[in-house]
Amino acid sequence: MVSKLNIFKIGGAIIEEKDALQQFLRLFSQVDGKKILVHGGGKKATELLHRLGIQPKMIHGRRITDVETLEVVTMVYGGLVNKNIVAKLQALGTNAIGMSGADANVIEAHKRPIKEIDYGFAGDVHTINGPSIAALLNLGLTPIFCALTHDTKGQLLNTNADTIASTVATGLSNQFDITLNYCFELNGVLENIADKNSVIPKIDSITYQKLIEHGKIADGMLPKLHNCFEALEHGVKEVRIGNLGLFEKSTSNYTQLVL
Amino acid sequence: MVSKLNIFKIGGAIIEEKDALQQFLRLFSQVDGKKILVHGGGKKATELLHRLGIQPKMIHGRRITDVETLEVVTMVYGGLVNKNIVAKLQALGTNAIGMSGADANVIEAHKRPIKEIDYGFAGDVHTINGPSIAALLNLGLTPIFCALTHDTKGQLLNTNADTIASTVATGLSNQFDITLNYCFELNGVLENIADKNSVIPKIDSITYQKLIEHGKIADGMLPKLHNCFEALEHGVKEVRIGNLGLFEKSTSNYTQLVL
Repeated sequence: MVSKLNIFKIGGAIIEEKDALQQFLRLFSQVDGKKILVHGGGKKATELLHRLGIQPKMIHGRRITDVETLEVVTMVYGGLVNKNIVAKLQALGTNAIGMSGADANVIEAHKRPIKEIDYGFAGDVHTINGPSIAALLNLGLTPIFCALTHDTKGQLLNTNADTIASTVATGLSNQFDITLNYCFELNGVLENIADKNSVIPKIDSITYQKLIEHGKIADGMLPKLHNCFEALEHGVKEVRIGNLGLFEKSTSNYTQLVL
Repeated sequence: MVSKLNIFKIGGAIIEEKDALQQFLRLFSQVDGKKILVHGGGKKATELLHRLGIQPKMIHGRRITDVETLEVVTMVYGGLVNKNIVAKLQALGTNAIGMSGADANVIEAHKRPIKEIDYGFAGDVHTINGPSIAALLNLGLTPIFCALTHDTKGQLLNTNADTIASTVATGLSNQFDITLNYCFELNGVLENIADKNSVIPKIDSITYQKLIEHGKIADGMLPKLHNCFEALEHGVKEVRIGNLGLFEKSTSNYTQLVL
């Protein structure tokens, strides 16, 4: 029988607010069986850039990772955020192990090619080292991935945490029965962005196309959903999007995505 | 047969100078069999404290780890230095995995009790989780430890890298045949501190006592040697102190310590 694996990705307010993070970690630590957590760094990297007098570089709303920015995200994602999450999970009884993509060579990426925009040290994932991740899970460990990968030539790269979550999920889908959970500040995909309680409980490929046609999906949510359906098409069993309601049994507290 | 394990600790100029670090990592990656690397952060943590306008707090030459300093060392040791070493080792063919003591709960410590001095979030190691470290080594991984531990209650702690190296060595000495290597800027323990080539090739317990009696050991070296002999008394087979000569076959290029 294929073993179950729950992958959670957290970002935004869940990372930034101490109490929200602690509440998430408490619920996460109670999830049975094999699990993985992927985290971004929220605004903490931007805060440190400001404190160091480095102007964050953005083009079309996307961060440009120059040398200084890479150093800062390596410190914040790989050090401050990751190690504190690991220590807190250990206190909650989860045997966590913090990792970047370079650790045990779990996530290989290449520096994004320069076309119109030079994103700097931004990494596009090309290989998930499934057996290495599975070996750690089989030791009873819970990997905690930060948003860093490497190019296998000694260069760390800044990689979007949503992408890490979905590529790790698809990369492991031939070995595990995977549920991918995106946990953020909203209760799920909303019918009406102004109404926090208008959660759409279930979206399949057909309703997804209809929602797009009717312009029902907010701009920021579009790439997220696109990512989710790509993961489903590549072997992930189920994707869930929501807030802490993700941990509840009732499916009305989050959005469930299936093919 | 008990398997061999080489533990290396690097600090000072080896960490601070890019070329020296790269040269060390190249030689380290060529060491056969099971190995562990322990690193400090050199002056990089002090540099970041300065850049952030935080005055480093020292009493009797020892760092006081307040909340802000703990954040900085977590970023520098656990993030910047650790992840870059891991990425560089991966490029050199060593399957490195970066860790603090919180990761996989490998090193448990307690906050140093307040006596005359409050050292803040400084951790004194009390337990090495030998089976967990051995399990990672048996997967073919090379653990890279930074100078951070945890108290198992969610608190990260700043712990001296020399101490981590010696306690990890003694903690694993019932499972492995251990050589502990301290790699730093000098060629070994010097007969004459002014003469870099006056390396004492071998020190045993008897010569160690004589050297102390004759005032031959420099102040900074005393606690290091004390640590080394304690490790030897607790099951470590051999300790070596030196520069990159540690990797050479000839014993005249470093100081060998035995009981």
